[in-house]
Amino acid sequence: MPASKDINVDSSLDESKMNPDIARERRKAEFDPIDLTYVLDRGKDRTELRRRTESMVFDDPQFKKEEIAFMDQVERFNYSIKQELVAVKKIRELGWNAVDNREEVQWLRSAIHGAEETTMSLHMSMFMQSVSFQMTEEQQKKWLAAITNYTIIGTYAQTELGHGTYLRGLETTATYDPSTQEFVLHSPTLTSLKWWPGNLGKIVTHAVVAARLITRGKDYGTHMFMVQLRSMKDHGSLPGIELGDIGPKLGYANVDNGFLRMDHVRIPRDQMCMRFSQVNPDGTYNAPPHSKLGYSSMVQIRSGLIFYAGFGLSKGATIATRYSAVRRQSELIPGRPEPLIMDYQSQQMKLFPQIATAYAFILTGFQLGQVFLSYIAEAKEGDFSALPELHSTSAGLKAFSTESTRGGLEVLRMSCGGHGFSSASAFPEIYGVFAPACTYEGENTVMLLQTARFLVKSVRQAFKGAKLTPFMSYLLLNQHERCRASKPEDFMNMETLLQAYKHRARRMVTQAGRNLEADLKAGKINAIAWNNNHLHLLSASTAHCHLFVVDSFNKAVEAIQCEDRTRRILRVLVQFYALDGILKNKGEFLESGFITVDQLDLVSKQFISLLAVIRPNAVALVDAFDFRDLKLGSVLGRYDGNVYENLYKWAKSAPLNKKDVPDAYDLHIKPFLEENQRRVQSRL
Amino acid sequence: MPASKDINVDSSLDESKMNPDIARERRKAEFDPIDLTYVLDRGKDRTELRRRTESMVFDDPQFKKEEIAFMDQVERFNYSIKQELVAVKKIRELGWNAVDNREEVQWLRSAIHGAEETTMSLHMSMFMQSVSFQMTEEQQKKWLAAITNYTIIGTYAQTELGHGTYLRGLETTATYDPSTQEFVLHSPTLTSLKWWPGNLGKIVTHAVVAARLITRGKDYGTHMFMVQLRSMKDHGSLPGIELGDIGPKLGYANVDNGFLRMDHVRIPRDQMCMRFSQVNPDGTYNAPPHSKLGYSSMVQIRSGLIFYAGFGLSKGATIATRYSAVRRQSELIPGRPEPLIMDYQSQQMKLFPQIATAYAFILTGFQLGQVFLSYIAEAKEGDFSALPELHSTSAGLKAFSTESTRGGLEVLRMSCGGHGFSSASAFPEIYGVFAPACTYEGENTVMLLQTARFLVKSVRQAFKGAKLTPFMSYLLLNQHERCRASKPEDFMNMETLLQAYKHRARRMVTQAGRNLEADLKAGKINAIAWNNNHLHLLSASTAHCHLFVVDSFNKAVEAIQCEDRTRRILRVLVQFYALDGILKNKGEFLESGFITVDQLDLVSKQFISLLAVIRPNAVALVDAFDFRDLKLGSVLGRYDGNVYENLYKWAKSAPLNKKDVPDAYDLHIKPFLEENQRRVQSRL
Repeated sequence: MPASKDINVDSSLDESKMNPDIARERRKAEFDPIDLTYVLDRGKDRTELRRRTESMVFDDPQFKKEEIAFMDQVERFNYSIKQELVAVKKIRELGWNAVDNREEVQWLRSAIHGAEETTMSLHMSMFMQSVSFQMTEEQQKKWLAAITNYTIIGTYAQTELGHGTYLRGLETTATYDPSTQEFVLHSPTLTSLKWWPGNLGKIVTHAVVAARLITRGKDYGTHMFMVQLRSMKDHGSLPGIELGDIGPKLGYANVDNGFLRMDHVRIPRDQMCMRFSQVNPDGTYNAPPHSKLGYSSMVQIRSGLIFYAGFGLSKGATIATRYSAVRRQSELIPGRPEPLIMDYQSQQMKLFPQIATAYAFILTGFQLGQVFLSYIAEAKEGDFSALPELHSTSAGLKAFSTESTRGGLEVLRMSCGGHGFSSASAFPEIYGVFAPACTYEGENTVMLLQTARFLVKSVRQAFKGAKLTPFMSYLLLNQHERCRASKPEDFMNMETLLQAYKHRARRMVTQAGRNLEADLKAGKINAIAWNNNHLHLLSASTAHCHLFVVDSFNKAVEAIQCEDRTRRILRVLVQFYALDGILKNKGEFLESGFITVDQLDLVSKQFISLLAVIRPNAVALVDAFDFRDLKLGSVLGRYDGNVYENLYKWAKSAPLNKKDVPDAYDLHIKPFLEENQRRVQSRL
Repeated sequence: MPASKDINVDSSLDESKMNPDIARERRKAEFDPIDLTYVLDRGKDRTELRRRTESMVFDDPQFKKEEIAFMDQVERFNYSIKQELVAVKKIRELGWNAVDNREEVQWLRSAIHGAEETTMSLHMSMFMQSVSFQMTEEQQKKWLAAITNYTIIGTYAQTELGHGTYLRGLETTATYDPSTQEFVLHSPTLTSLKWWPGNLGKIVTHAVVAARLITRGKDYGTHMFMVQLRSMKDHGSLPGIELGDIGPKLGYANVDNGFLRMDHVRIPRDQMCMRFSQVNPDGTYNAPPHSKLGYSSMVQIRSGLIFYAGFGLSKGATIATRYSAVRRQSELIPGRPEPLIMDYQSQQMKLFPQIATAYAFILTGFQLGQVFLSYIAEAKEGDFSALPELHSTSAGLKAFSTESTRGGLEVLRMSCGGHGFSSASAFPEIYGVFAPACTYEGENTVMLLQTARFLVKSVRQAFKGAKLTPFMSYLLLNQHERCRASKPEDFMNMETLLQAYKHRARRMVTQAGRNLEADLKAGKINAIAWNNNHLHLLSASTAHCHLFVVDSFNKAVEAIQCEDRTRRILRVLVQFYALDGILKNKGEFLESGFITVDQLDLVSKQFISLLAVIRPNAVALVDAFDFRDLKLGSVLGRYDGNVYENLYKWAKSAPLNKKDVPDAYDLHIKPFLEENQRRVQSRL
C-alpha cells in the first residue's frame, strides 16, 4: 500500500520547491498568515502546541498514512482501528487525559485520521459523557475506570431503525423484574432495532442504550441503561443479542455504524443510569427533579458544530483555492497564455464567499462558546433565563452552518473541474464525512423549526409590548426605516449592513408570526396552523441565524488580538460575507423595505470591488488555516502546488494499476474478442 | 454475493403485499399513472416495448444483479464488464443494431446496469460517432465494421491532465513524417497526458485521440487520429504507450477512466480522420470547409442532457417520495400517532418541487428535441439561421438543468434523514453517477457564459432596434408594465406567470448588457469588461434558461395527447414549478419591477395551496416514472413500501457481517484489551 498521497510538506517549505504560480501568490499577500493562524488557534502558544502535537504524528513512522481511497470497506475498518489503537497508546505514553488535554488529544487524533472520521471516537465522547452525566457518583466510579483504562469499549445507542430525531418515538423497552432485581432489555419490533450508532456493529463491548423504562406496569419514557453486548472472552455477541454493521454508506467507510436487536436481555438493576431518577429494588420509581442540564449539554454540542462546520469548509476552501492558484485554463485576453483560473470573476465568486464563510463560522463558534460560558456561570447562580434563547439559537445555527457548509463544499469541489471528482482531491471523502452533520445531532429542518418556536414567542411578546431580549429587539425596528446608502462604498459600513440584516430578520419573523396568527384566527388548531406555515417559519429562522452570524463575526473581528494588517483583511471578509449574503437573498432584503432595487446595484458593485481586494490575499487566507498536507490529504490542495506530477504518481499506485493487463481481460474480454474475431472470419 | 437489494416487484403487485400506508396513497390519486407513463414514453406502444425490453433483463437469470455497494473497485470493474458483455451478446441475438434499435438498446443496458453507469458505453457512442462523423466513407468502412463486430474496443480521448473544456489548450501532438507516411503521436509534457476518458485505462484496444496536427513545421490545431493502444494478442500496452486507471473517484466506480502517455507512437497516414481536412502523402494540408456540423452534434448531445437531468431527478424523487409515504416521525397533532413525513409542509417543500422539476426537464427535453429536428430540416435546405440561438440555449440549459438536478438530488437524499446516507437508499450511487454531468460536455459555468454571449448580442441588437428572434422578443417588453394579480388564484394564470419570467429575464439580461457597456465606456478592454461582469452574465443566463423551461414545459403539457385528468395534474405541476421558481428567486422578480412585495405574498399563498393539490397525487406522480425496483436499486424506493424489513435484510448481507467477530478483533482489539486488563491488574 503506497503512502497516502505521498506528501508531507508544510509552510516551512523553501520557495524554490514550490510551483512558481503559487509562490508568486504567497508573495502578494498583504498580511502574515501566521498572525491569522494565531487568531484561529486563540494564541501563539496554542498554535505552537498544536503544531508540536501534529508533528508527533507526522514525524513518527508508526503513524505513516496509507491511502484509504484505495481500500475497501473491511480494509479501511481494520486500518482505522489499528491507527486509533496506536493513538490511544501514544496518548497514554504522553500521560495525557481526556479532561486536562482535551484539545491536544483531538489534534493528535485529527492528525492521525486525516480526512477520515476518527474510529472509536464515541468511546471517549458520547459513551463517557453519558456515564459522567447520567450515572450516580458510585456508578461512575466503576464505569469511568473501565472506560479510561479501555478494559471495555463502548458507544451510545439511541436512534432506531424507525426512529430518529424524535426521542419520544423510541420503542426499545427496559422492563424491571423485582423478583431478580434486573431490567429486561427488549426490542419488541423490527423498527425498534438500534440503528446507526457508531462502532456498535463490530467494535464495542458495551453500550449505553436508550430505552423506555417500564416498572410496575407503567411506562416512564426514555431512560439510559448500561448493557454489555459482547463477551470479554472472545468478543462474540452475548446470548439474546444480535449485532451487525448497517452496510456501506456515504462517508464514514471506516466506521462500523451498527444495529442491535435485544431479545429479553437481562442486566442488573444498578446498570440503569440513576443520577436523575431511580428504580428502587421493589420497582417503585423516583422521578427526576425538573432539570435544565440536559438542554445545556445539547446546547454545548450544537454550538460546537458551527465551529466544526467552519473547520470543514476551511479544508475545502484550502484545496480549491490552492488549486485555483496553479491551474491554468482557457483564455481571458485573446492571444495571451491561459490565465490562472483564480483570475476569473466567476471562480472568485465560488471561492471567496466560502473562505469568508469558513472564517465567519469559526469566529462565530468562538463567540457562541463565550456566550455559553457566561450562561453556565449564571446557571451556577441559579439563573437559567438565558437558556431559551441560547437553546433556540444553537439549534438554528447548527442547521444554518452545516447546510451552508455542505453546499459550499460542493461548490468548492466543482470549482476544481474534473479533478475535483477524483479521490486524489480528498473532496469525496471530506463531503462524506461532513454531510451527515446536517442530519445527526438534530435534523436540520427540525432544528430550524425549533428556533422558529422561540422567534414566534418573541413576536407575540413584541405585539403585546412585552420585554424582549437584547438580540431580539430587532423586532421593534421601525418598518418604515430606509437605508440611506447612495454609493457602493456606503455598503462597507457595518452599521448599515447590520441594519439591513436586522430589517430582513424583522420582516421574515413578523411575517411568519402574522401568517400563523391569521391561520389561528381562521379557526385552524395550533398544530395545523404551525404545519401550514413551515415555509415562512423556515425563512424566519434562517434570516435570524444569518443575522446572528454577521453580528458575531463582526464582533469577534473587532475583539480579537492581532496585527492591524490582519484585522484589515478580516474586516474585509466580514463586509464581504455580509454583502454576499445580501446578494444571495436579495428578495428578502427587498421585502423588508429597507433596501431598494437601486441600492442592490450598489451592493453588487461593492461586492465586485471586494473580490479584487481579496484576490491577492486568497492563498494567504487559506494558508492561515494551517493544514499540514498529511492532514488535508489532498493532491490538489498541496502546499507546494505541485499538483500534476503528484496526481500522476497517485494514479499510478491505484488498485487497478497493479497490472498493465487487468484480470478482466482473461476472464471476460479475451474470450469475447476471440469469439467476435471467429464470427467475422466465418462470415468471410 | 447476495442479489442486489433482493427485490423485483413492480406495478403489477397485489395491494395486499404492500405497506398499507403506500397502498392508501395510491388509492388517493386523482389520475391513472399509466396514462402519464405513456406521455413520458411518448406513446403506449413505446411503454409496452420498453417494459418488454426491461423484462428480458429482469426475468433472465443471466442478468441477475449483485449488490455493487458491497464490492470494491476492482470487483465492480470486473462485474460490470461481465454484465456488459452479456448485454452485447443479447443484443446480437436479438438482431438489434445501434441505429434502428437505439432506444431499445439503451433500455436494455439501463436495466442491466441499474443505478451504475454503463461500462464500455463510449464504444458505441463517442467512439463510433467520432468514426462516423470524422472519417471519410472509405475509412469508415474498415473501422465501423470492427466496431459493430466488436473485434476492437474503443473510446474517445480528448481531455488532458492539464486541459479540460478549452479545446485549443490541448498539447498532444501528431507530427506528420512524409518519409514513412506516418503520424508521430506524442505527449510532450506531463500536462499533455490524456486523462479521464472512460474505459481508456484498462479495457479499450483503440482510441480516437485528439491531437494538434503538425505538418511541414506548421501547427494546424486539433485533429482526430485513430490509435491502437493495446496488442490484439495479449492486450498489453503497445511500445511507446503508457496506460493506466486514474484511480478512485466520486461515482463511476465501475469505469476505468484512464490516462494515456504516448512516446513517439507511429500510426499510418490513413488513421488521421480525414473527412473534413486531409494531410496528403507529401505533407501538404487541405483545410476543412467551414462547417457548422460540429456545433450541431454538440447541440444534440447537450439537448439530450436536459432529458438526462430530468431522468436522474425522477429516480431521486421516486425514492424520496415513496419513502415519505411510509416513514412516520415525530408528532404533528399532540397525542395522535406519528404522521407520515409527507404530511409535513417542510417535507412537501423538499419533494414536490423536485417532482415538478423532473417533469419540467423531461418535457423540455422533448421540446428541445423537436426544435433540434426542425433546425436539422432547415439546415438540410442550407438555412443555419436558427443555430446560434439553439447552440446558446442548449449550452445554458445543459448547465441549468444539471446543476438544478445535482442540488435537487441532495435535497431529496437528505429528506430521507439518516437512511438517505445508506447505500441501501441508492442515493450515494445516483449522485455519484449524475454529478459529473455538471462538468463533462462543457463545464457548467463556461456553458452559462456561452449563453450569455448570445444574450448580450441580442441586447445590443435590441438597443439598436434590430430584429430579434421570437423568443428573445422579451427584451422589448415595457419595463414599466406591472402585474395585475390581486388574489392568490391570479397566479394560476400561465400568461401572468410567463410574463413575470419574461420581465425577470429582461431585467437580468439588460442589466448585464448595461453593466458591460458601462465598463467598456470606462475604457476597459472587451475581455476585461466581460470578466468583470461574470456575476451579472451568469444571472442573465440563468434567468433566460429558467424562462425557457417554464415556457417549454407549459407548451409541452398543452400539446401532449393524454386523458383530461392527466393533463389537469400536469398543469398543476407547471404552475407549481413556476411559482416555486419565483419564490426561490424572488429578488430578481422584484428587481424587474413587474411583481410587488405584496404580490409575492399572494405567490406564496398560492404555492401553499398547490402543495395540498399535489399531496394526494404525489406517489402516483412518481409511480408514473415507472421504475422497476431492480432498475431503481433502492430499498427506500421499493414499490411495495416494505422498507424496514428490507433494510435489515440488506444490512445482514453487508461485507462486515460475514462473521460476528471481525478480523480486527484478533488482529488489534484482543491484544489491546488484554494488555489494558493486565495493566489494571498490575496496579491493584
